[in-house]
Amino acid sequence: MEKIVECVPNFSEGKDKEKINRIMSVFDNHDQVKVISYEPDADYNRTVVTLIGPPDAMVDAVLDLVGAAKKEIDLNQHEGIHPRMGAVDVIPFVPVENMGIKECVDLSKKTGKRIAKTYDIPVFLYAESAGKRYRKSLPKIRKGEFEGMKEKIKEDKWAPDYGEATIHPTFGAVAVGAREFLIAYNIDLDTDDKSIAKNLSRIIRKSSGGFQYIQAGPAYLEERGHVQVTMNILNYKKNPIYRIFEVIKMEAKRYSVDVPSAEIVGLIPKDALEESIDYYLDREYLSYDKEMDLDTLVFNVREHLRLRDFDKDKIIEAHLDES
Amino acid sequence: MEKIVECVPNFSEGKDKEKINRIMSVFDNHDQVKVISYEPDADYNRTVVTLIGPPDAMVDAVLDLVGAAKKEIDLNQHEGIHPRMGAVDVIPFVPVENMGIKECVDLSKKTGKRIAKTYDIPVFLYAESAGKRYRKSLPKIRKGEFEGMKEKIKEDKWAPDYGEATIHPTFGAVAVGAREFLIAYNIDLDTDDKSIAKNLSRIIRKSSGGFQYIQAGPAYLEERGHVQVTMNILNYKKNPIYRIFEVIKMEAKRYSVDVPSAEIVGLIPKDALEESIDYYLDREYLSYDKEMDLDTLVFNVREHLRLRDFDKDKIIEAHLDES
Repeated sequence: MEKIVECVPNFSEGKDKEKINRIMSVFDNHDQVKVISYEPDADYNRTVVTLIGPPDAMVDAVLDLVGAAKKEIDLNQHEGIHPRMGAVDVIPFVPVENMGIKECVDLSKKTGKRIAKTYDIPVFLYAESAGKRYRKSLPKIRKGEFEGMKEKIKEDKWAPDYGEATIHPTFGAVAVGAREFLIAYNIDLDTDDKSIAKNLSRIIRKSSGGFQYIQAGPAYLEERGHVQVTMNILNYKKNPIYRIFEVIKMEAKRYSVDVPSAEIVGLIPKDALEESIDYYLDREYLSYDKEMDLDTLVFNVREHLRLRDFDKDKIIEAHLDES
Repeated sequence: MEKIVECVPNFSEGKDKEKINRIMSVFDNHDQVKVISYEPDADYNRTVVTLIGPPDAMVDAVLDLVGAAKKEIDLNQHEGIHPRMGAVDVIPFVPVENMGIKECVDLSKKTGKRIAKTYDIPVFLYAESAGKRYRKSLPKIRKGEFEGMKEKIKEDKWAPDYGEATIHPTFGAVAVGAREFLIAYNIDLDTDDKSIAKNLSRIIRKSSGGFQYIQAGPAYLEERGHVQVTMNILNYKKNPIYRIFEVIKMEAKRYSVDVPSAEIVGLIPKDALEESIDYYLDREYLSYDKEMDLDTLVFNVREHLRLRDFDKDKIIEAHLDES
């Protein structure tokens, strides 16, 4: 039973394609690690990389990524709307197959130690890896960003977990940690009125009274010309996709706004889709066929959850079968 | 601007109608306090009284209620399925008009002091009136019930806030406190399968991943022959009734179970109904008329929220206009 970990490092370059290509080329030397996707965002000036592979190979690959980013990126020259404190800003490890959160915590510590030692970069452990409660939150650690960390890191409260209490002059600092799998799920609204997306976000998210495992906010997609409710689902078993989708559709009715489509960013486990398809089939007096192949599942997902740009490659299990 | 408080004392007799009538007759001497309803439950062997009125008159009326219950009820002879530690078990004060929770805390303390002094009954402050966090929860205070309180009350941790650390031999002890207004809301399901009500409760309630301000559980109504999702809505502005109703309808579809009706137990503020009717009218491209009279509101409420046994008297404002 091979162990498989997901790692989703974010690095601070989202515009310069040549630079991005040079950084991404480090993965050519790591056959065991699969690059599921990398998504540069020019406004954010940041690239999110989704990797899966066996734990030890993953640590080696991530170390090389940090090395390449250190060479290519100087945060003194970096501007973007997303907050950041490092050339590689954050490295989360996520349990996928035959391993639990505890092993991912160990993995993050091993990685953090090696980054500090190899590159002289201070490392903060965050999320499940944090030693203290107040250091769980990445936004709290990162507050002040690259520019502010120069002083902040000298405070006892904000000493790094590994490395010296001095940020690297061009790289900054990096957060490494373990977290449970989350689904990044966005629902499209057929309007450009951001206030509607804001109201719907408030209804659905925990922080303003909604579902326990939902983080949500409004976003305007300039290229597509409409707004979205953009979400993280922190526990898809307790807050399944179909329920979120149906509540948003129900609430959108009062604004006479259509909900034409939705999207999954990054990966989703097969059982998260199955649970939702099961709901829609139940409503039609059909029962979910557990032997349904991935293509049929994708067909149903497009039909019922209206997921656009969705194919098999978004499903974790599609990659596990191949590897 | 007259101040109006709601008080919902629960006393431990739900079977003997003559006894109940004698106890309830104390309110004949308190003109300013209005008895909105009293609901004896034989299985619980407990009666819930809903009162509204001005604060000072309310304290006097509640003192008399405690006196009558002390005369009529001997907890050594009491059996019922609802946990209880006192002949009057709990006395919550709820802000309704021109007053806030802080004034209700003061009122509960004043009442508690007088109960201890007048009747030699130990008093526990609970909910917002509790001095310490662990004493906020009534179930925690009451754990062990009348029988167990004899010893428990002697522990330092469970010393009463007023009176001696000895329960009254026939009355027991009483909890007095202040809490925010809550709506008791039950949704009927056209099935006698309690497991369906249980699943729907889990979806909706905070404790298992649902909405932040919802407490919920399943109940089987023997006389009516169907199950309910029985709920408290702790904040109806953040978790409005229509949303709960629509989510339950949506989830019930997978079981092919109809949702024919629902009910409000006790009182509901007008704006809680308005918010929900507004949603349904919006969907029909109509706008909510703020001048809508209570009869028209009730008509709409029956139509859209399918509330059974609902009339104007359930709306707090109907009583405020009269008083």
